[in-house]
Amino acid sequence: MDFSKLWLGYKQLEDCSKKRLIISCEHDLKDSAAVDELKNAAADMMPEAIVLWRSELFDDASYLIVLTVKPELSREEYDIAASDNITEICGGSDIGVLYGVYAFLRRTALEGRFVSFTEHHIPSQPLRMLNHWDNSDGSIERGYSGNSFFFRDGELVVDQRTVMYARLMASAGINATVINNVNVRGLAKHLLSESYADTLTELSELLRRYGIKLFICPDFAAPITVGGLESADPLDVNVINWWTQCCSRLFSSLPNLAGFLVKADSEGQPGPFAYGRDHADGANMLAKAVKPYGGTIIWRCFVYNCTQDWRDEKTDRARSAYDCFKPLDGKFDDNVILQVKNGPMDFQVREPVSPLFGAMDKTNLMAEFQLAQEYTGQQKHVVYLVPMIKEILAHKTHCKGENDEVGKIVCGVAAVANTGDDHCWTGTELAAANLYGYGRLLFDESLSAEQIAEEWIALTFGDDKEVHDKVLEILMESHKAYEDYTVPLGLGWMCKPNNHYGPDPWGYEFDRWGTYNRADRDAVGVERGPEGTGYSTQYSKELADLYGSVENCPDELLLFFHRVPYTHKLHSGKTVIQHIYDTHFEGFEKAEHFAALWDSLESKVDEKTFANVKERFNEQVRCAKEWRDIINCFFHRLSGIDDEKGRKIY
Amino acid sequence: MDFSKLWLGYKQLEDCSKKRLIISCEHDLKDSAAVDELKNAAADMMPEAIVLWRSELFDDASYLIVLTVKPELSREEYDIAASDNITEICGGSDIGVLYGVYAFLRRTALEGRFVSFTEHHIPSQPLRMLNHWDNSDGSIERGYSGNSFFFRDGELVVDQRTVMYARLMASAGINATVINNVNVRGLAKHLLSESYADTLTELSELLRRYGIKLFICPDFAAPITVGGLESADPLDVNVINWWTQCCSRLFSSLPNLAGFLVKADSEGQPGPFAYGRDHADGANMLAKAVKPYGGTIIWRCFVYNCTQDWRDEKTDRARSAYDCFKPLDGKFDDNVILQVKNGPMDFQVREPVSPLFGAMDKTNLMAEFQLAQEYTGQQKHVVYLVPMIKEILAHKTHCKGENDEVGKIVCGVAAVANTGDDHCWTGTELAAANLYGYGRLLFDESLSAEQIAEEWIALTFGDDKEVHDKVLEILMESHKAYEDYTVPLGLGWMCKPNNHYGPDPWGYEFDRWGTYNRADRDAVGVERGPEGTGYSTQYSKELADLYGSVENCPDELLLFFHRVPYTHKLHSGKTVIQHIYDTHFEGFEKAEHFAALWDSLESKVDEKTFANVKERFNEQVRCAKEWRDIINCFFHRLSGIDDEKGRKIY
Repeated sequence: MDFSKLWLGYKQLEDCSKKRLIISCEHDLKDSAAVDELKNAAADMMPEAIVLWRSELFDDASYLIVLTVKPELSREEYDIAASDNITEICGGSDIGVLYGVYAFLRRTALEGRFVSFTEHHIPSQPLRMLNHWDNSDGSIERGYSGNSFFFRDGELVVDQRTVMYARLMASAGINATVINNVNVRGLAKHLLSESYADTLTELSELLRRYGIKLFICPDFAAPITVGGLESADPLDVNVINWWTQCCSRLFSSLPNLAGFLVKADSEGQPGPFAYGRDHADGANMLAKAVKPYGGTIIWRCFVYNCTQDWRDEKTDRARSAYDCFKPLDGKFDDNVILQVKNGPMDFQVREPVSPLFGAMDKTNLMAEFQLAQEYTGQQKHVVYLVPMIKEILAHKTHCKGENDEVGKIVCGVAAVANTGDDHCWTGTELAAANLYGYGRLLFDESLSAEQIAEEWIALTFGDDKEVHDKVLEILMESHKAYEDYTVPLGLGWMCKPNNHYGPDPWGYEFDRWGTYNRADRDAVGVERGPEGTGYSTQYSKELADLYGSVENCPDELLLFFHRVPYTHKLHSGKTVIQHIYDTHFEGFEKAEHFAALWDSLESKVDEKTFANVKERFNEQVRCAKEWRDIINCFFHRLSGIDDEKGRKIY
Repeated sequence: MDFSKLWLGYKQLEDCSKKRLIISCEHDLKDSAAVDELKNAAADMMPEAIVLWRSELFDDASYLIVLTVKPELSREEYDIAASDNITEICGGSDIGVLYGVYAFLRRTALEGRFVSFTEHHIPSQPLRMLNHWDNSDGSIERGYSGNSFFFRDGELVVDQRTVMYARLMASAGINATVINNVNVRGLAKHLLSESYADTLTELSELLRRYGIKLFICPDFAAPITVGGLESADPLDVNVINWWTQCCSRLFSSLPNLAGFLVKADSEGQPGPFAYGRDHADGANMLAKAVKPYGGTIIWRCFVYNCTQDWRDEKTDRARSAYDCFKPLDGKFDDNVILQVKNGPMDFQVREPVSPLFGAMDKTNLMAEFQLAQEYTGQQKHVVYLVPMIKEILAHKTHCKGENDEVGKIVCGVAAVANTGDDHCWTGTELAAANLYGYGRLLFDESLSAEQIAEEWIALTFGDDKEVHDKVLEILMESHKAYEDYTVPLGLGWMCKPNNHYGPDPWGYEFDRWGTYNRADRDAVGVERGPEGTGYSTQYSKELADLYGSVENCPDELLLFFHRVPYTHKLHSGKTVIQHIYDTHFEGFEKAEHFAALWDSLESKVDEKTFANVKERFNEQVRCAKEWRDIINCFFHRLSGIDDEKGRKIY
């Protein structure tokens, strides 16, 4: 099986004087993932050494690791006390120990040798989840890294790759995963039935060993499509009984199953609306069915009218999640979590933070991000997403005095995974920084995006300074560059319809998705202030004042919130049109610069990785040029205003 | 098998006094299609009568038909002398007789009784061809009428539907058919090999019986893909030998095979360019291989750069067929025919006539039309194409004094078929008017488009005056209505990419297909006059003068040939922008009017047909509204000019 170990591909330590790695722990831990990880790491880091268990051969040529479960620690908490001869790792459970082991190995790998340090940590976010949009036929919705490794031709697959997946995710800090697409199609509906029982049990146990809770996306209409009933009405007693029995069987055989993730009444998926019920009716019905097993229902808030008439200027898709869920605040059971996309639209390169985060006092919330780069270059363009995720988690909602940041309001975070069955897991090797960084950030929110990038670079490419500096520069400037050469000032949706790749300024302008820029020869943007659609009023007063007026609104979101003439002056001092031209030229130049930086690393990166990433950069540069020229041309044709600097606009 | 008989669904004659239909002919004709057609028709027209052969029971209750082959007539020529008791039909061959029988039956069906008349006719166009874009997997490229009835899951199918196909086509006057897509994919490549030998022979014989010559689209790279050679270089002796042997086997076993239709070096299809050869090298090589069997090579001129950079304003796709083929005039063998699309682009609702028709003195030419309504509403919108085809065939090229009309320059005409395996053959019943009308027009160019429509209406719907008048009105005004509410003034390409349905004004603007409108806030159109791309200079002087200047250019082609401001005054006296608004409002109203006309026929048309056509009209009205509002909105946003009449523009 051909796949990369990514950040778990340890290099040999500088100091090879240790000939023995002695692991000391209770019998309970002897076959744990924590011990496996130490053995795996030792094989790479100390290839000459032998690994012993509880040996008394402790001398200068030995390195001793003591693993202990301490009940006074919380489940995922750990304590490390390391020296150059001996390390003690305590955890609140086998998983706490495992996290301690990963932390110890990471530090050792980064230093290149055993060092003295202590570390005590409790993961920042309690629920750190991946959502895989994998279909049972093996395809992946919005997948840019090959096919699914969970599903192949309708079968659920558990093999060495799945083990590696669990190791990678656990080492990055992920503790929950949803293995199938929120759009539940084909055989995936039968994950609820007996058909997948054996392999599902095997997968569930494998994940449990690495501290990863299993979630499934069920078809809300499963009572009909799987159970053969005539209704899926959440208040129908037959439907309730069906789910009760279904959950009883499922959760009894899968102790590591933690619940369901549900996309209901959205983009054609079935849901409670068909029966005149609301989202609380739907979610609570399922919540009661999973409650006896400690299960959780995660319910997506991505609900909007996807058959809008473009002529209708009153309906505003940005309003819809709030309008739909705000009235239900307080009506959800305590084992329901609402999963809210980071912005009100759909994973654009720039959106305001969803107003729902500041609006649902009495409801459990999760934030949803998208590592799969659907609208951000599809893993052909490098876009390091961790700074954006960190910024959003740190975003102050002003909903209450203290601790009003998104990251503190939510009880967990999910992200659509960017993985697939290709060699490097994520299409381009550089996109693994998002996978790693996402987990690490949720695990330890005190880390900066830059620190995380540096960790990832060192673990992936080693300690060469030139590689470090150049890859770091690429990653840290990548999001701005992409935003610069694509969609200006928060406007969104200037991509090609359906596949969402490459520029098409009016590709979504006359369609049914509620995605309009309303550009004409005089002005551009949708007015979402109080005089417009009123979207800005969904925020707390501080933010409503900020976003609601053209004067206060931050430049980068101006065209999301307001309709202004091309000659409007930004806070930066530039006009809107000149800003568009400047950023598009600059962004493209950045893409060229990234490609050149990568080219200069040819001798320092392994051949396969170098070639794969180079091919992606070629495509990024080609596509960035299209973006630059098409967006500039579009606005020039409309505005008739020339570039102040006289650059070529087609 | 569920399919309509279309115009061959004869009704009972008014006068039912005839109890016997006596057919008299030589033994050679006894089993001919002509006799079959008489028997088929008799079963519908005279259900009480018996059909006898050479009976002597000739009395007042008998109707006698004498069929004779007369060698002094040309093959497809026929002579009819009909009275109310006896009809003599002479033909130059069994096919001439068959055409005479169809003419006699048509006249009888239209009159509703036997009448006295004489008719002598030679078909106007010698080669009257359909091109089916059917793939071997059963799909049809640009098919809007279901799947293929020629191919199903890789198999060639010959059944009762194929017989009906042959009857319908022969009765409309078609005498040649290409059964597979010009883009030769999958198993279709093996039509050249032994794999299809048996069913191909069966199909070929069936078609022969109805006077329809069989053509096949071969893969130009067949020596490689079928033959296993390493090259398809037309000057390579191994390649030549391979084709020679292939044709020897194929033509020997298929006496009705008349040749190949080839799409080479176009949109990714293989061709001679790969070997540094030109189109004449490629076509002549094949021509020599089919020559011993009287075969013909039809070579498409649809060749252009389909990877154009939209920034490049010098390259003009409209020029490409002429630029590519004009230098080769005189270099093609005498059994090569170049097949030229009616316009220089690709079957848009309005294009100028291709300049190639006036430019290839020393080369055999055919004109290619498209009955499949790829860009003209995909058989959801009613667009009667016969007036356009007639106009183009009557178009004076001014290449020589007399007989310089396209229809007189060409040695044949082809059209992409609009058929499929649905109940009514053509998606909507009304689109059968195009299939029938196309054949009839080529068979008898003296007929007007209106006469043909009237024939078709009467044969399809019977003689109800209201049905006649309303359907005729719909058909005759349909093309103008569609043009009015879609793309103005010859501009083209404002449809959605790929599927070519519905409006997307800039869907093709920044793409690689050479299809740009270059609209901006001041002006619209590509300048193709002498000061522009020079496309207008490809015409004879008279036409170059007409098209080359803004002053002379006909309104309906103005934006094809010229870039003008929105305030430019047309010959009609309207400005360009007001013309756009007016036609879009009027065109939509026409679509609504058509739908209302059809609705009023509910009691007069059979239920199934009524419902199917009504559903299409609903879609036409919906889509016409999108076209009206999006195109008007597009030009209003750009121009900023309001509608003089104050109508709502979004």
